[in-house]
Amino acid sequence: MDSPIKNIGLRGVVIASTKICDVDGANSRLLYRGYLIQDLAMETTFAEVAHLLLHDKMPDIHELVNFTNQLERNRTLPPNLICAMQTRPVTTPPMDILQACVALLAHHDDSLPENSLPLARNRAMGLIAKLPTVVAAWTRIRQRLEPIEPVPGLSMAENFFYMITGERPDRRIAELFDRALVLHAEHAFNASTFAAREVASTRAHMYAAVSAAIGSLSGELHGGANTRVMEMLKAIGTKENIKPFVEDKLEKGELVMGLGHAVYKNGDPRVEILRPMSKEVGERVGDTHWYEMTEELERVGKALFKEKKDLEIFPNVDFYSASLYHTMGLAHDLFTPVFAMSRVAGWCAHIIEEQFADEAHKPVLYRPESEYIGTYCGPEGCTLVPMDKR
Amino acid sequence: MDSPIKNIGLRGVVIASTKICDVDGANSRLLYRGYLIQDLAMETTFAEVAHLLLHDKMPDIHELVNFTNQLERNRTLPPNLICAMQTRPVTTPPMDILQACVALLAHHDDSLPENSLPLARNRAMGLIAKLPTVVAAWTRIRQRLEPIEPVPGLSMAENFFYMITGERPDRRIAELFDRALVLHAEHAFNASTFAAREVASTRAHMYAAVSAAIGSLSGELHGGANTRVMEMLKAIGTKENIKPFVEDKLEKGELVMGLGHAVYKNGDPRVEILRPMSKEVGERVGDTHWYEMTEELERVGKALFKEKKDLEIFPNVDFYSASLYHTMGLAHDLFTPVFAMSRVAGWCAHIIEEQFADEAHKPVLYRPESEYIGTYCGPEGCTLVPMDKR
Repeated sequence: MDSPIKNIGLRGVVIASTKICDVDGANSRLLYRGYLIQDLAMETTFAEVAHLLLHDKMPDIHELVNFTNQLERNRTLPPNLICAMQTRPVTTPPMDILQACVALLAHHDDSLPENSLPLARNRAMGLIAKLPTVVAAWTRIRQRLEPIEPVPGLSMAENFFYMITGERPDRRIAELFDRALVLHAEHAFNASTFAAREVASTRAHMYAAVSAAIGSLSGELHGGANTRVMEMLKAIGTKENIKPFVEDKLEKGELVMGLGHAVYKNGDPRVEILRPMSKEVGERVGDTHWYEMTEELERVGKALFKEKKDLEIFPNVDFYSASLYHTMGLAHDLFTPVFAMSRVAGWCAHIIEEQFADEAHKPVLYRPESEYIGTYCGPEGCTLVPMDKR
Repeated sequence: MDSPIKNIGLRGVVIASTKICDVDGANSRLLYRGYLIQDLAMETTFAEVAHLLLHDKMPDIHELVNFTNQLERNRTLPPNLICAMQTRPVTTPPMDILQACVALLAHHDDSLPENSLPLARNRAMGLIAKLPTVVAAWTRIRQRLEPIEPVPGLSMAENFFYMITGERPDRRIAELFDRALVLHAEHAFNASTFAAREVASTRAHMYAAVSAAIGSLSGELHGGANTRVMEMLKAIGTKENIKPFVEDKLEKGELVMGLGHAVYKNGDPRVEILRPMSKEVGERVGDTHWYEMTEELERVGKALFKEKKDLEIFPNVDFYSASLYHTMGLAHDLFTPVFAMSRVAGWCAHIIEEQFADEAHKPVLYRPESEYIGTYCGPEGCTLVPMDKR
């Protein structure tokens, strides 16, 4: 009866089938709806990818224009949501703001509690459009500045920077930011997506499910990784410190943040795209220090883990996105909210799949079993001792 | 490739072990930390049960006094949370308010992001204490009335009614309400508890996890059932209509809301406690109509299902709690929030178990596998057709 809590975290357990994403770790392949991530990142935009995820179809030009227009119309926040945000303590982490604001957004959707595939897609677009506005508004409010309204005609990436700084960003930097959103938009049954599906499986609405997903992403084992990569890079400081830093980690039997992946044992395909992006942004803004630090840490880390532990390790998606976002000028605690701004497309696609799969195979709510290993006094239960005898 | 989405909802899959709760469906037994639900309901209070769940120990008198005092000190909401609530559209369902408010409460906890067993238990007590205040405050605010502050010296149940109506409730009704909270406090890995554990497994904080659980509970397949029982009773209206109503359901191959349970195939042990409670409250307030309707529906439903389908069916916990809460004067859309006010004790116990299990068996984040059944064009992915050719 005294055995410890056992918890397998569902590793290796196939719990559902999906048409949205294929993560083929052994072959370093990531596909959204059948398309390779490399092709999507280099040849499409985040809006096209969001359409692909939600509609299971690459949009033609008319569909894309409609989709983009609908996103544009949805960017502005309800004034009462801004009022609610202005009641928040200015020290509140942006992820905690984001989880609350998505739950608050439900209150402004007059079409609830009705649900249908078109309504669900509309809600998804509303969330994809509004998350950057929430993040940017909070970045202003916590500095005691007035939020800046989104501007029609700017892309989502351009608007995001504009709503933070009041200035239109460099066009190329906005393009590369958009590409980073493509790279983070979907990754099958990770913890946050699973949380979204789990909540949606009770027929709760999309805001309830996305808010839960943001809560899950806020945990340091999940979305917080690229922020911690940046903290690590700052703590190392200069290139000369990298070797002793890795040696120290090896000696302590610890891992280096951002090196290694639970699924991609032979390398994360997104890294090959992110590395040159980080370099290009560094060159463009005239600060390649953090890119170079990251590259050197990758080189030294790989070599030392190979030499001392005979381990092939590869960087993961968080490794280069840290220097990328930092060099773009984003505060470190915005890295995970930016992840959410992108992944919300994937979450919503999964929520729709959970709630609108074929009628014949209608999903049911998740209700797993647990094994009881606590106190057991027999079928009549433990004896309740009266209060005066306890 | 065109096979439908498969989703087993993890039914019958043992995914973890727990020391908190044993649901023995075959033998109609429910145990919290080794104690039978019948004993807990008849001989203890919700505060004792919350202590038992959080500390794995029935409190002695000193522990109970401390615990109760700490709950009492935690009931009041931060003024800025009330301000945020006052920005909400008055038509917002209380469950949507509750999910948002728990996320908002995180913003007022200065001890975040630190975590430890004592901090986690303090947070749990804060949530157990504040949820009734949130629900009551919203009940006032949506009627455009000023919220009423909790009063020291009143029990949680007494305060709840007082904060809604401004009047101290009948002492016996408050006792029976407290008993209902005992009955709903915990039920192993149901959907909302699983959502809480899933979010906590990423090391997200307790507010993030409880907010997710409330989202899950808000779904009509989970927490919404007793509200729907009450709607059904209202729609049936009078006893004479019961038999044709059940016959119609049988004819259509449908179930009767509140009759039957996925786990307790031989009866839900909580029903035997709830039935006389519903009767007593009815007699006390001079309105036994809904109790009698419920009892008659149970009798007729059981008999007709046996006769026509040779099925033994039993009412579940939602069946009698509907008439109980209605007769206590609660609005129907408060039934599920009341469920949350009680179940939050179980959620927090599970979050603590998820995050503070033995070091040797430290839980890991949930990351299940999925099977990809979508479009597949081979290892090189589908060909991206350029925009002008789509």
